[in-house]
Amino acid sequence: MPARLKLVLAYDGAAFAGWQSQKNGRAVQDVLEGALAKIVGQKVRVNGAGRTDAGVHALGQVAHVDLPRRSLAPERWPAALNGALPPTLRVLRAAYVSAKFHARYSARAKTYRYRIWNAAILPPLEVGRAWHVPRPLDFETMRREARAFIGRHDFASFAANRGGPKPETWRTIHLVRMSRRGARIAIEVTGDGFLYRMVRLMAGALVRAGTAQSAAGEIARRLRAPEGTLPGARYVAPAEGLRLVRVRY
Amino acid sequence: MPARLKLVLAYDGAAFAGWQSQKNGRAVQDVLEGALAKIVGQKVRVNGAGRTDAGVHALGQVAHVDLPRRSLAPERWPAALNGALPPTLRVLRAAYVSAKFHARYSARAKTYRYRIWNAAILPPLEVGRAWHVPRPLDFETMRREARAFIGRHDFASFAANRGGPKPETWRTIHLVRMSRRGARIAIEVTGDGFLYRMVRLMAGALVRAGTAQSAAGEIARRLRAPEGTLPGARYVAPAEGLRLVRVRY
Repeated sequence: MPARLKLVLAYDGAAFAGWQSQKNGRAVQDVLEGALAKIVGQKVRVNGAGRTDAGVHALGQVAHVDLPRRSLAPERWPAALNGALPPTLRVLRAAYVSAKFHARYSARAKTYRYRIWNAAILPPLEVGRAWHVPRPLDFETMRREARAFIGRHDFASFAANRGGPKPETWRTIHLVRMSRRGARIAIEVTGDGFLYRMVRLMAGALVRAGTAQSAAGEIARRLRAPEGTLPGARYVAPAEGLRLVRVRY
Repeated sequence: MPARLKLVLAYDGAAFAGWQSQKNGRAVQDVLEGALAKIVGQKVRVNGAGRTDAGVHALGQVAHVDLPRRSLAPERWPAALNGALPPTLRVLRAAYVSAKFHARYSARAKTYRYRIWNAAILPPLEVGRAWHVPRPLDFETMRREARAFIGRHDFASFAANRGGPKPETWRTIHLVRMSRRGARIAIEVTGDGFLYRMVRLMAGALVRAGTAQSAAGEIARRLRAPEGTLPGARYVAPAEGLRLVRVRY
């Protein structure tokens, strides 16, 4: 009897060509499908909750996969798959779910964290894991500007074009948590869904605010009038600062 | 007029073939000497406080180098060198020092930190940065056993053979700080000097104690009677868990 398996995954984004399957086979999806094929003996397709870009890390990505049958007890899946995966990609948990569950469409909320290292020198162990911003950032201004994101807004000016049909651009941000500890700044955002590169565009806008490259209230104005946003204001923070933290269903 | 320059360095041990110069040129010393040669226009020799093995990280390694003259103001050296170094190796600080200063022989104390990840699964972002110990560790036993290291002892049974003449093996450990936060265990050791692989042998002994592979009091017995230590008891923890934190003068 066919079975749908839900997987919770973590990966080092620097080790893969993003989530989505690539011709070179170096995407997280490709590597995961390769490990699954070894165990179930046939090609299966993995569906992820979010298609993270190359360089973006995941602490709790979720995926589902349809198996020909329940070939293993759920608690045995993590060790079985991890034995066939590189250490930079781990299956943290697994569970059989109903055929109505869909990793992407059933997601009710996602949390992303964006990390910034705000000091003259980026420590070697932070390379590829934070955005290095050497100029001093005014954290209180960033925190004040970030409040504008909370609520339901048209995020069209915080979305990059992925090609394909233009998506519906209204999203609800439930929570923005900003923290600063020494040089480390973290922006944690929870919402009902995110457009392409939305968190990186949000982080870019906050750094513009923190370096006084934008006027007070610019984020609120962009949310009220997305079509009036000048291209120069749309600054995409680099991929390596971003982590998909968790997906809630 | 010749000048001696002191450098404080940080590096990702995974990116280099250890500290000490290698034929392949991939040691930290080689890469640093290459960057210095570009700036001073001639080959200069770098002397490090500690010769870290391949895979061992540094948050505050110290080195000195003799320059033909004070070619730059001290505060300009970090940016000048970092511009010629890979991001996995950073010069944090620089200062001109007296010709009596020697990075290795003037060191009064060093601090190392050894990191253990004690859970079934090693998170991908911890690969190469912690020793993955999946078996449960009894942290209180480890902490109790670690106290034996404090003070002046013959550490012969906590030293690996590097070749060359047998070194004097008495060392003083000033401080051992053990911490546990979830799966993260850290062992921070400060002492007047460390033998070859001493911290990794200390961490290995503590993990043996924490998994009940050794009897209570084994570390104290090894310090009292180093020659009576069985080879099986000498367990070297892997390089990737180790960080040279700081050197005091």
